[in-house]
Amino acid sequence: MLPPLSADEPAFEGQVPFDDRGLAYGDGVFETVLLRAGKPVLWDYHMARLRQGCQRLGINVPCPASLEATWQGAPTATLEVLKIILTRGTGGRGYAQPDTVVPRLLSRRTPFQPSAERWRSGVTVRLCDLRLSRQPRLAGIKHLNRLENVLARQEWNDAGIAEGLLVDSDDVVVEATSMNVFWQQAGEVFTPLTDQCGVAGTLSAALVDQGAVKQATLRLSQLPAVEQCWVANSVQGMWPVNTLLAADGSVLKRWPACEGDSLQRLAHQLLGYAPESY
Amino acid sequence: MLPPLSADEPAFEGQVPFDDRGLAYGDGVFETVLLRAGKPVLWDYHMARLRQGCQRLGINVPCPASLEATWQGAPTATLEVLKIILTRGTGGRGYAQPDTVVPRLLSRRTPFQPSAERWRSGVTVRLCDLRLSRQPRLAGIKHLNRLENVLARQEWNDAGIAEGLLVDSDDVVVEATSMNVFWQQAGEVFTPLTDQCGVAGTLSAALVDQGAVKQATLRLSQLPAVEQCWVANSVQGMWPVNTLLAADGSVLKRWPACEGDSLQRLAHQLLGYAPESY
Repeated sequence: MLPPLSADEPAFEGQVPFDDRGLAYGDGVFETVLLRAGKPVLWDYHMARLRQGCQRLGINVPCPASLEATWQGAPTATLEVLKIILTRGTGGRGYAQPDTVVPRLLSRRTPFQPSAERWRSGVTVRLCDLRLSRQPRLAGIKHLNRLENVLARQEWNDAGIAEGLLVDSDDVVVEATSMNVFWQQAGEVFTPLTDQCGVAGTLSAALVDQGAVKQATLRLSQLPAVEQCWVANSVQGMWPVNTLLAADGSVLKRWPACEGDSLQRLAHQLLGYAPESY
Repeated sequence: MLPPLSADEPAFEGQVPFDDRGLAYGDGVFETVLLRAGKPVLWDYHMARLRQGCQRLGINVPCPASLEATWQGAPTATLEVLKIILTRGTGGRGYAQPDTVVPRLLSRRTPFQPSAERWRSGVTVRLCDLRLSRQPRLAGIKHLNRLENVLARQEWNDAGIAEGLLVDSDDVVVEATSMNVFWQQAGEVFTPLTDQCGVAGTLSAALVDQGAVKQATLRLSQLPAVEQCWVANSVQGMWPVNTLLAADGSVLKRWPACEGDSLQRLAHQLLGYAPESY
């Protein structure tokens, strides 16, 4: 195993060279983190997922100080989004990695404002044509091979559609293009397993740890029968889904508004989005 | 649609910025081209695959002059390998691409020498544990989402094993980690379809066009019964497979040596590897 990145090796915004394996093969992982009051929200969950991704791909995890350096100096008065990219590093003959390879850590912070209107009024979500492929070796981690998400997001260009719902090749509900999915059935809330495809959400993991959500399998055909549906992530917060459209634009299902439901309240408490900020 | 890259926009070796979508999502395609006597070999096939990849991903194809500029000035006395990376370019809010986005074309040339010994004596190939996922939307094109190949190539570290054989989640034979597979049955030669996964090889396409090879489906269970097996690509040429190992190292099958068989002769004629150079 390689030594961890040293604490004095700072993350950088800059560029990656032609032969960086992140560029060549998508050989790396990333995280997108909400920064509030200059501190990362759900940092332990983001780091757990990053570590799991590194372990799965065989990339050495940077030391905590290098990772924490990515958000140090963030402004305390405004929200920001921190994006971290960690690639395996440079080189190798083809797909084989070099005997010694130093991971490359990059990061960028961007000002951010969530859409409180979507928290209140809910959103329209469209079922994507694209079916996610099932690959347990890559499922759950936030790796850099995201062409399925890119292709799915290309399917619509209507600002009135907030997200695209993704199901896999077995018609199992997995996620939205950049958010996780939650549904209520018999008064309990569930979110999909991510053992075959999809990204394991950090907010989702925190809600499971809180006992508010369980992991389960939902087939597309069962979705219209659920009592309520949400899409959420650790940056945007939780949007109630009020309308689910088929790929052709027809309405598959409408759900009643559920602003300020207990699941959203808990999610926003975890993210620091206080009810009075709506 | 965006205008094509202008002829005076040269390809460059350089770096890509943090927000290049090739780095962020593997949102792009690549080609690896043999340069002989300063000219690309099977250029039309490489360009056809690159165009198909761009069409599938919705990336504008650079103009021919920009692509040809990647190999101009190559030495005429030695072999080189040209690698071209074409990304969708910079930016976008998450997976959605910006309204205007300029593809980024990068290239690098490297001296190359094929392994004539492998042409003559054949190679040992190992069946990989990893199963390729089936995703028809990405199958066949040489996109930048190559983590399955990276993980498969990590499975062994024995210089005596030349390649890893990849089968998909349905146990259909697809390819080797960086080469295509060919097999002989009842005197005819076949190569897998690449409509569910795998990369459509340029040498493979040329051999199909020559009438020497047909596309067919081969299940893993049928492989030991074939009369001969090869792995090949447009850079390395064609290696007869003399031994197929299981993932645990046990021998699944040995094939007799077939140096200089008619398929290899034709492949090497297409690539300019003359028999006397063996």
